[in-house]
Amino acid sequence: VDLNADLGEGFGVWRLGEDEALLDVLTSANVACGFHAGDPSTMRRVCLAAAERGVAIGAQVGYRDLAGFGRRRIEYAHDDLRDDLLYQIGALDAFARLAGTRVRYVKPHGALYNTAVADEVQAAAVVAAVAGYDPSLPVLGLPGSALLRLAAEAGLPALPEGFVDRGYRPDGTLVPRSEPGALLAEEAAVAQAVRLSREGAVQSLCVHGDTPGAVALARAVRAALTGAGVPLRPFSPPADRAGTAPG
Amino acid sequence: VDLNADLGEGFGVWRLGEDEALLDVLTSANVACGFHAGDPSTMRRVCLAAAERGVAIGAQVGYRDLAGFGRRRIEYAHDDLRDDLLYQIGALDAFARLAGTRVRYVKPHGALYNTAVADEVQAAAVVAAVAGYDPSLPVLGLPGSALLRLAAEAGLPALPEGFVDRGYRPDGTLVPRSEPGALLAEEAAVAQAVRLSREGAVQSLCVHGDTPGAVALARAVRAALTGAGVPLRPFSPPADRAGTAPG
Amino acid sequence: VDLNADLGEGFGVWRLGEDEALLDVLTSANVACGFHAGDPSTMRRVCLAAAERGVAIGAQVGYRDLAGFGRRRIEYAHDDLRDDLLYQIGALDAFARLAGTRVRYVKPHGALYNTAVADEVQAAAVVAAVAGYDPSLPVLGLPGSALLRLAAEAGLPALPEGFVDRGYRPDGTLVPRSEPGALLAEEAAVAQAVRLSREGAVQSLCVHGDTPGAVALARAVRAALTGAGVPLRPFSPPADRAGTAPG
Amino acid sequence: VDLNADLGEGFGVWRLGEDEALLDVLTSANVACGFHAGDPSTMRRVCLAAAERGVAIGAQVGYRDLAGFGRRRIEYAHDDLRDDLLYQIGALDAFARLAGTRVRYVKPHGALYNTAVADEVQAAAVVAAVAGYDPSLPVLGLPGSALLRLAAEAGLPALPEGFVDRGYRPDGTLVPRSEPGALLAEEAAVAQAVRLSREGAVQSLCVHGDTPGAVALARAVRAALTGAGVPLRPFSPPADRAGTAPG
Repeated sequence: VDLNADLGEGFGVWRLGEDEALLDVLTSANVACGFHAGDPSTMRRVCLAAAERGVAIGAQVGYRDLAGFGRRRIEYAHDDLRDDLLYQIGALDAFARLAGTRVRYVKPHGALYNTAVADEVQAAAVVAAVAGYDPSLPVLGLPGSALLRLAAEAGLPALPEGFVDRGYRPDGTLVPRSEPGALLAEEAAVAQAVRLSREGAVQSLCVHGDTPGAVALARAVRAALTGAGVPLRPFSPPADRAGTAPG
Repeated sequence: VDLNADLGEGFGVWRLGEDEALLDVLTSANVACGFHAGDPSTMRRVCLAAAERGVAIGAQVGYRDLAGFGRRRIEYAHDDLRDDLLYQIGALDAFARLAGTRVRYVKPHGALYNTAVADEVQAAAVVAAVAGYDPSLPVLGLPGSALLRLAAEAGLPALPEGFVDRGYRPDGTLVPRSEPGALLAEEAAVAQAVRLSREGAVQSLCVHGDTPGAVALARAVRAALTGAGVPLRPFSPPADRAGTAPG
Repeated sequence: VDLNADLGEGFGVWRLGEDEALLDVLTSANVACGFHAGDPSTMRRVCLAAAERGVAIGAQVGYRDLAGFGRRRIEYAHDDLRDDLLYQIGALDAFARLAGTRVRYVKPHGALYNTAVADEVQAAAVVAAVAGYDPSLPVLGLPGSALLRLAAEAGLPALPEGFVDRGYRPDGTLVPRSEPGALLAEEAAVAQAVRLSREGAVQSLCVHGDTPGAVALARAVRAALTGAGVPLRPFSPPADRAGTAPG
Repeated sequence: VDLNADLGEGFGVWRLGEDEALLDVLTSANVACGFHAGDPSTMRRVCLAAAERGVAIGAQVGYRDLAGFGRRRIEYAHDDLRDDLLYQIGALDAFARLAGTRVRYVKPHGALYNTAVADEVQAAAVVAAVAGYDPSLPVLGLPGSALLRLAAEAGLPALPEGFVDRGYRPDGTLVPRSEPGALLAEEAAVAQAVRLSREGAVQSLCVHGDTPGAVALARAVRAALTGAGVPLRPFSPPADRAGTAPG
């Protein structure tokens, strides 16, 4: 199974999360692309550090909303959203190529991730951006979401992910954050990670990188998976360094 | 000789210049990349329209300064500037690839263009961005500038350009805008364009796209050059559409 | 009756609408405050020009969304929206005071205007911002909107406005833009302006300043109202210049 | 003597420094106004917390440069800078008024602070912004700077400040950050604070709020000054809560 988290979510002097420590544990890094978080120098640094460790680089694309960190829904028109996302993927890919690799997948961030679960217009815009850039790029999303359905219909690899530290209901949906059981403590989260990876319904496990204890949780999950005989590897292998020159 | 102008310099609802009309006359389009002007949907539209006409797409990179249109000097650190520019080139290339072509050259905009004439730190940052993206990409700049010198030293194609509508002193430098003769009327501009292209010291001629009469001037220049037997073609040929899939 | 339009909606080098010409016809100017449009130097220029002509200055507040011109709905949290709007009112008031007057009313722009018709959270945020700044400031909005109802409940002057160039249904609601009759031609618009002002149900008439022909329409409306014996004056008189020092 | 530090320098989800702890020690808070740092909700929170503690609120104005945190010089035209600063002062004052007080002084931030030491154009723009807003507002700056000289010539209260944790040369200028002795350890900093306050050449002492140990240093300075019989109070008293209604 693959282990992913959000990285590079600072902006200018501001930092968020522990990028370096997480990169030693993850197999895939969702790198912010500058619209809701992330700046070019951070993108460069994270891409280089990820490539050195063989961690796959994904484009963590989001709304144009630094002040809101991409966490509030915006009623984009389809074409405007598609173009904002395509722009971000291209920008991140410049740094991935510089690091001798490529953007290996796309994962929407925050309110865009949540909106693309049910909103077909925005889900289709994500799909159009990815397909426009490279139709072989996988899209990571919530199982059962409009995003994954439309991605699959468009011929994109559509990969479901599970959340290590969020509670699930019996029907497979997440416990809303406003209810008890929404967030799991470390022990329960680790057990859930092992269970999800064994069931095989998800291709990747997501650890939230911006919460306290994220690094410790990620390490505990990795140790438990290894102990349980579940090999950790990126679902989308980082490029070999040959053949990655732009173009 | 090549004929270039700045395009795609609107932002959101705001427009500047006559992109479509200019694209029928130019051979190279310097497309704004979103930091001093330009937005993703405009970038897409201009790239598609340029590719349809066989006009080469260049990255018109600039400072992160929408409010100032990139026209005021900013004392960037070298690495921050390099990364801001690399980000812009990658973003524009996503739209160029979508249009079946590629970014064919890089030209700094506004205060960055002027600063890179003499400031070695900023000139080196431009060179590092281009070389980091694709060492075969030409850089367009002022003859005799630090930018072109450092680009050549780094092994990049370094191409000098002339200005159609700006007056030159006998020593080849531009008449400052504060002095008489800084701006040429159409007839003098056309004559200068023919002279510059015959002398062969410049690879490209620049028409300022955001001034009134830009389209008429560009047409007159094109007609005069054609009449004088000077073939107009992009210095950097737009890609054939085969072989341009990303990566 | 009062005649209002949106002004100062450029940003940096980009311009929109004909501010100067409209100021000669209006009695109230909704000045953009820098979040969806407008920049400080434009705000200064428009405030000075409005004050010279005795035109009342209103704060045209909007979402933080220059790229979208404030025209796409954003799911702000109440407190974040309230604070973004309070910030804008304070900023504009600095320029109004400099011009010897004050901000005389507040009118939401674009998607915020439309959202505040029915969304109580956002309507309440507008009301909280205005009440927090100055509980004597009127709020301008759509008749029957949540915004005007909550403003009145909070003790703010709540003023309904009519649209000169938009078609109305018999029940008083606007014909949606997607249907025939949504936009009125000049003659019908002028007739509607006279009718609305005579009926007395609205305190102000709005002319859209960013449409072609806006100045001509505004002049025709003004002439027709004057001819019909309807006096044009700001619903909120611009301050006398005495007593307007800050504080 | 007065004790000031920079506060409210986060943006959106990003935080910087320990605003709450510092507010218990300072007598004046330089609150970021949204252009280089700071957002409306942070401004509101800091203004309310400052007013509760009787800490004077100053406008920490800066360049429009969130990505660079206002630390890189920008070659603004005089009028553009003046208007950007006036905008910021007005915006902050909205929150100060809401908290029952007013903006009590203005202090430029980062590269603007340093530029206004010698650059007369930018120093004059700061002075014009403050004078345009309220000619009774003091300006805080470096002793001997163009800023304080031009402020005094314009009739503004011009107040010199000293730096607690920066080394001084015998001639009273700061040791450059690139040289040994530029930064003082806590003991030396406290001693310098007592010395500066006794010499009486500065009206305020500045502690850098964004460095590790800032709160501890500020507490030590306050304790030492109190122990030395130097009363700590804002140079510009926060308003009594009566009479602070806007306008």
